[in-house]
Amino acid sequence: MSCQLNYFNGKGRGEIIRMVFAAAGKSKEFEDRRIEFKDWPQEKTKAPLGQLPYIKLNDKEQTTVGQSIPIARYFAREYKLYGSTNKEGLLIDEIVETAFELLNKGAEAKFEKDETKMKTFTEKTAPEKLKLLEQEVTLRGQDGFAVGKSLTLADLQIYVTIDVAGLDKMLSEYPKLKANVAKTAENKGVKEYLKTRPETSF
Amino acid sequence: MSCQLNYFNGKGRGEIIRMVFAAAGKSKEFEDRRIEFKDWPQEKTKAPLGQLPYIKLNDKEQTTVGQSIPIARYFAREYKLYGSTNKEGLLIDEIVETAFELLNKGAEAKFEKDETKMKTFTEKTAPEKLKLLEQEVTLRGQDGFAVGKSLTLADLQIYVTIDVAGLDKMLSEYPKLKANVAKTAENKGVKEYLKTRPETSF
Repeated sequence: MSCQLNYFNGKGRGEIIRMVFAAAGKSKEFEDRRIEFKDWPQEKTKAPLGQLPYIKLNDKEQTTVGQSIPIARYFAREYKLYGSTNKEGLLIDEIVETAFELLNKGAEAKFEKDETKMKTFTEKTAPEKLKLLEQEVTLRGQDGFAVGKSLTLADLQIYVTIDVAGLDKMLSEYPKLKANVAKTAENKGVKEYLKTRPETSF
Repeated sequence: MSCQLNYFNGKGRGEIIRMVFAAAGKSKEFEDRRIEFKDWPQEKTKAPLGQLPYIKLNDKEQTTVGQSIPIARYFAREYKLYGSTNKEGLLIDEIVETAFELLNKGAEAKFEKDETKMKTFTEKTAPEKLKLLEQEVTLRGQDGFAVGKSLTLADLQIYVTIDVAGLDKMLSEYPKLKANVAKTAENKGVKEYLKTRPETSF
């Protein structure tokens, strides 16, 4: 059995894991199990933390583990998408954490369909966090990458956040982030995945 | 110059980093710079993400990096408090993430002094998350430890969460967590630190 990712049939908090597989050229080596909302009540009991995503590892015990970023980081380490030193790992994590917070705020505002929250997100939270990410990428990265000189989990999380939170139209004000998103989309495995992934509503 | 931690004069989201240093026996090798609230407006401009905690590394560039858990994880790797395999790192991260979410929910409810939020936290959020953590520790740990057979970042984050969110009175219903908290407090460096750390209001 290959390793199995369990997540809803959407991008949300599961997409970063799929993107790690894509960038590593491993999309075909894991099972992308997509759960429909109607099946969630019965599925919930199988999820180790009662939430999605979770992964079923390809080990003797078929260990199941929850939490999106920990899973993505595990595979990023496995596939050398986590920098080459402990310090690079720290710089990557700092960006991933900041970008994931932004994704969560965006997803929350969208999901609740609360106009005031959406306005706060678009006019305040998103510009503030994008400015910080722009600074980080400027300081840490080279040649269009977020940290160091090659693709890492940081680039993938920035890409996913911009995509899931629908922030691409704001990128003209953040040239480094804009260049970074374009750079990630050029990655061979990512490019292939983006062309073939299912269309979903979130 | 030694490495410098910048955080408010409280436990909150900075304590996990101090606990990593303590467990590693390195408390005296870093500067624990505690910032008073009144000084925060002028301090904020120096913080890389406009928030605390942040660390100033002891490298040539004196790199400053924000985000609590990324910093704690960096030093946990440095001091061998992050397991011995990539998989152990994943299991540690899963618990750290879950326990840190619980700390944040508790801190939020306390900080806002909102009675309804506090009630939801005490009667719903905390019991639900503690139950999950109890399950995880039961599955992953041995000899009282959270993951594997030695002290890691997971034990330290559980300890800090219980402490900061004031959940110690609820632990009688979670025997594995209770034993785990006691185990962490036995660690030589932790024990020494807990005896000498300043009393703070949060």
